[in-house]
Amino acid sequence: MKKYSEMTKEELLTLKAALDEQFKVEEAKGLSLNMARGKPGKAQLELAMPMLDVLQSDSDMNTLLGNDTRNYGDLDGIGECRYLMADMMEVHKDNVIVCGNSSLNIMYDTVARSYCFGVNGGTPWCKLDKVKFLCPVPGYDRHFKITEQFGIEMINIPLGEDGPDMDMVEQYVNNDPAVKGIWCVPKYSNPTGISYSDETVRRFAALKPAAEDFRIYWDNAYCMHHLYDDDQDQILNILEECEKAGNPDMVYIFCSTSKISFPGSGVAAIASSINNIDHILKLMTVQTIGHDKINQLRHCRFFKNKDGLIAHMKKHGDILRPKFEAVVNTLEAELGGLEIGSWIAPKGGYFISFNSMPGCAKRIVALCKELGVVMTGAGATYPYGKDPEDSNIRIAPSFPSPEEMEMASAVFVLCVKIATVEKLLSEM
Amino acid sequence: MKKYSEMTKEELLTLKAALDEQFKVEEAKGLSLNMARGKPGKAQLELAMPMLDVLQSDSDMNTLLGNDTRNYGDLDGIGECRYLMADMMEVHKDNVIVCGNSSLNIMYDTVARSYCFGVNGGTPWCKLDKVKFLCPVPGYDRHFKITEQFGIEMINIPLGEDGPDMDMVEQYVNNDPAVKGIWCVPKYSNPTGISYSDETVRRFAALKPAAEDFRIYWDNAYCMHHLYDDDQDQILNILEECEKAGNPDMVYIFCSTSKISFPGSGVAAIASSINNIDHILKLMTVQTIGHDKINQLRHCRFFKNKDGLIAHMKKHGDILRPKFEAVVNTLEAELGGLEIGSWIAPKGGYFISFNSMPGCAKRIVALCKELGVVMTGAGATYPYGKDPEDSNIRIAPSFPSPEEMEMASAVFVLCVKIATVEKLLSEM
Repeated sequence: MKKYSEMTKEELLTLKAALDEQFKVEEAKGLSLNMARGKPGKAQLELAMPMLDVLQSDSDMNTLLGNDTRNYGDLDGIGECRYLMADMMEVHKDNVIVCGNSSLNIMYDTVARSYCFGVNGGTPWCKLDKVKFLCPVPGYDRHFKITEQFGIEMINIPLGEDGPDMDMVEQYVNNDPAVKGIWCVPKYSNPTGISYSDETVRRFAALKPAAEDFRIYWDNAYCMHHLYDDDQDQILNILEECEKAGNPDMVYIFCSTSKISFPGSGVAAIASSINNIDHILKLMTVQTIGHDKINQLRHCRFFKNKDGLIAHMKKHGDILRPKFEAVVNTLEAELGGLEIGSWIAPKGGYFISFNSMPGCAKRIVALCKELGVVMTGAGATYPYGKDPEDSNIRIAPSFPSPEEMEMASAVFVLCVKIATVEKLLSEM
Repeated sequence: MKKYSEMTKEELLTLKAALDEQFKVEEAKGLSLNMARGKPGKAQLELAMPMLDVLQSDSDMNTLLGNDTRNYGDLDGIGECRYLMADMMEVHKDNVIVCGNSSLNIMYDTVARSYCFGVNGGTPWCKLDKVKFLCPVPGYDRHFKITEQFGIEMINIPLGEDGPDMDMVEQYVNNDPAVKGIWCVPKYSNPTGISYSDETVRRFAALKPAAEDFRIYWDNAYCMHHLYDDDQDQILNILEECEKAGNPDMVYIFCSTSKISFPGSGVAAIASSINNIDHILKLMTVQTIGHDKINQLRHCRFFKNKDGLIAHMKKHGDILRPKFEAVVNTLEAELGGLEIGSWIAPKGGYFISFNSMPGCAKRIVALCKELGVVMTGAGATYPYGKDPEDSNIRIAPSFPSPEEMEMASAVFVLCVKIATVEKLLSEM
């Protein structure tokens, strides 16, 4: 097939007529599909159901240290769960607080604490004229919503295949004391699926922040979420690298089992230097008496250890792989060589990121909606919901079945073609 | 026995010698008892163990509306749990958000939201020079810790047998726009055990706050926690009364099942006007994707409805009653008529509040500690940990066994006597 950009007006008009016919055919199907939501499918949820059997009315409810999980106590989480989450994050148990069900909530609270009380005794951000965060884009909309709610100015940083543009990151962080943080999804990034290279991680660790209270918000949401057993991304340990570089307090790591056990009923944790953890606990002791320790125990008894997590996540990968491949194969078969869009075939995570020609993303999403396929809103992957190029679309293949993903992908590529032809014609 | 205040120096010295002998006898026992912690005893925890059996690997995990509790969604809580918590709080389901495991955390977040973003779009408290809260005393130390952490000035309001001194409350609330809130435990108050009279509740509802963003923080922690089936306190519905009085948005109600199912693994909720609830949800949607809905479902399947809660709490009352009576009986038998202390025999809740003669509380707690009986620190029931009279001591009878409570109470009254005699002698 000829590249669209090389077509004459007549060729484009002929193509458009054919695409419009296809559109009518799809429209007549009355589809109702959803590629918007990064939530596990039913088959994945079933994998964790036996977890509900491990604690019953006759179970021993004590931790290994003999603490009764049914009563108050253990603000920083029960010992065995701190070990489990520490292993997941590849840090020491003492660097971990296990919290409630949501790592997003931990990130929110971490920003909120900094806003109200300052970082480790520094000036509360609410007393400053200006606070800025760096936002690698495309990125996770819920990160951006947090910083937006607190009135923090967000600065776009292009995300490449090795991670954020580190020249820009260094330029901002090392020179502007108003820059207090950067949102990172270092492994199987949301939404592009890329993982940070060793050089990227080392350059992060070697930052010389102008602001003493600058922190890296390292959301390792997909640390266990591989699609291919024999081809997994590995990232360097940021906490270790920061220590080595003389910046031991510079990173907060977040993770959870939301997409391992149950979304909403998992356990979430934060890891950081002992110094940071102590400051967090000192404030946290006023916020709550403790988190759900029975659910922590349930997770420990079910998964047992990191090997248990790995074995479990292999099953998730087996379920997700065909869904991802259905999308990627359709993109390659239908759009390959046309130069009207680009994407990366991810090796893990929850998303596929698609870049259309500039100015087409909103139109593509609108066309998909007309055909009954709901996509994440165009722009959602950028701060303030504004994609300056109107180009990026996040595809979430996890919830529908592989067959539904095939149908939805067929609709998607059709809409990409139509929107692109419309754009090219409008510019002639 | 003669009143201590009527004793001569010689009589007091003789008494002291006898008490010192008793002290040595108790000391030799090497006791290790705890009357400090408002946590349920093991027998109470056992009551909820069958709750762990209601959801198993073959269970239907859908809500009555067909939503899968295992996946993301239902930010305001699953429908049936909103009903259950609404019934507990005697409000409508639509006025309720069911959150995580901790009502304290909801209170903290409610204050934090007001501090960062203002109440319903009002000026954020962090932008104000001065914010004040009224604190009925003696009260709950963890309430006071929250307002202290946010730098909110706390004003003591005496708590009588009908509730806070409403003349003072009206004086402050209706005239000082810096007064933004008041902490209330309206039923079986922590620590005195009193419940607010109908007149008190009506006067609360009829407040004419100088500050538009003034709210009543109504912590109905012990709404279900009766000791006597046939002699229960009832309080007026504050949300209804506020509506009637033309102040529909003036109250936030908090409650949880922490001392009904499991401390740390219960469900907590907030109730308020639809207007307030909408504002909270709008901010909360950035903080979290949702709370633990599987645990909400577990609670609904186990308790079924309010009758289930009532039947369950009757069993708690049966366990707690002898412990409370062991303390109250000892106080009456040993201190009755001496006029060296006062207390109220509570009909519910988790505490007994004791008032010594002024200047004795710290000494009593210290003496108890020497004999191996840990009490809540004197002063803890006051803002900033400062009891101006050094008089109030909170007794928590729930955790030890009735026999242990008897032993601990005997130690306590001995220490009260010794501290009082010391004080009277020092003033001669």
